[in-house]
Amino acid sequence: MKLILASASPQRKVLLEALGLKFEVIPSGIEEDDHPEPDPANRARDLAWLKASDISKKNPGSIVIGCDTLVVADDGTLLEKAKTVDAARRMIEKQSGRTSLVHSALCVIDLKGKLHEGISSSKVFFKKLSDQEIDWWIGTGQWRDRSGSFQIDGLGQLMIERIEGDYTGIVGLPVYLLGKLLTEAGYPLGKIDN
Amino acid sequence: MKLILASASPQRKVLLEALGLKFEVIPSGIEEDDHPEPDPANRARDLAWLKASDISKKNPGSIVIGCDTLVVADDGTLLEKAKTVDAARRMIEKQSGRTSLVHSALCVIDLKGKLHEGISSSKVFFKKLSDQEIDWWIGTGQWRDRSGSFQIDGLGQLMIERIEGDYTGIVGLPVYLLGKLLTEAGYPLGKIDN
Repeated sequence: MKLILASASPQRKVLLEALGLKFEVIPSGIEEDDHPEPDPANRARDLAWLKASDISKKNPGSIVIGCDTLVVADDGTLLEKAKTVDAARRMIEKQSGRTSLVHSALCVIDLKGKLHEGISSSKVFFKKLSDQEIDWWIGTGQWRDRSGSFQIDGLGQLMIERIEGDYTGIVGLPVYLLGKLLTEAGYPLGKIDN
Repeated sequence: MKLILASASPQRKVLLEALGLKFEVIPSGIEEDDHPEPDPANRARDLAWLKASDISKKNPGSIVIGCDTLVVADDGTLLEKAKTVDAARRMIEKQSGRTSLVHSALCVIDLKGKLHEGISSSKVFFKKLSDQEIDWWIGTGQWRDRSGSFQIDGLGQLMIERIEGDYTGIVGLPVYLLGKLLTEAGYPLGKIDN
């Protein structure tokens, strides 16, 4: 039974490997920026489905995992991937000393084309950062290609006091939810029945 | 400035490496089982200090990091490292469907021998596990050498619905707190001033 991760994210690959699963990585060609849905949780769900669906159609006989992770500031602003240093700085300034919400949606498409979907939402509590600390973070460059311009796996952890939710969902692939959906989809995941 | 991690834990080494720091691993000879303090948070603090102190004395001119992680079930029972399959099973059964508390204490000893101490406490919410799931987990063997007989970095994550606190503290080295203590101890940690 072939398993495909429809994502180019190296972090997601690492998390899936940690479960001891054999899988192939085939990133979808879905353009996130083109999607019109503005509600963050619905947007994440839609994008996870679009990505899984895109790859599932091209790879019959596979179980496909689609994922999308979005960050929402506590004033409701959607924080996607910053394209410039200035945009990254504004995102970090907005989150400093505050709590962001991370929605990580999953869509698993099984061998019969049936969808198994869910969303893992977590709170991230940021340290109140000085200008010097924000300069440091922007200087590391590690905000690139990360929703909300932060990361929690590595140096970025120094800015995060605590979380409520699933750490792996914040990284980008909520493992507990994935276990549940893969089991529903008939994929043999050791003997755990999530 | 030489930095020493006074712990044999491979998970702690990985977390410290993720911060891009250069350090040496020198496990202390402290016997955890011999320590008389029963209160979990105080016990973790004492052991972190004893480990750091043991290595600091033998390595003058170094900054030493000592750590201790303890798990407490929601009935207050201290769950240390299980020595047998039966003990591991009892620990997992006790935590199934319930919330455990993980105390991760750090003690950093600076070049002048001054202590910088703190504790990171996190809640871990376990799935209600079936007998078959408990069999599976015990069969993986991954409970060995882990306080509370679970782990959150890898397969064990499939049993954990959510956390409140610092994921890295549950793994064994609370990175946010470490940043704060290393900065207090005068160790140059990039430009972040935790």
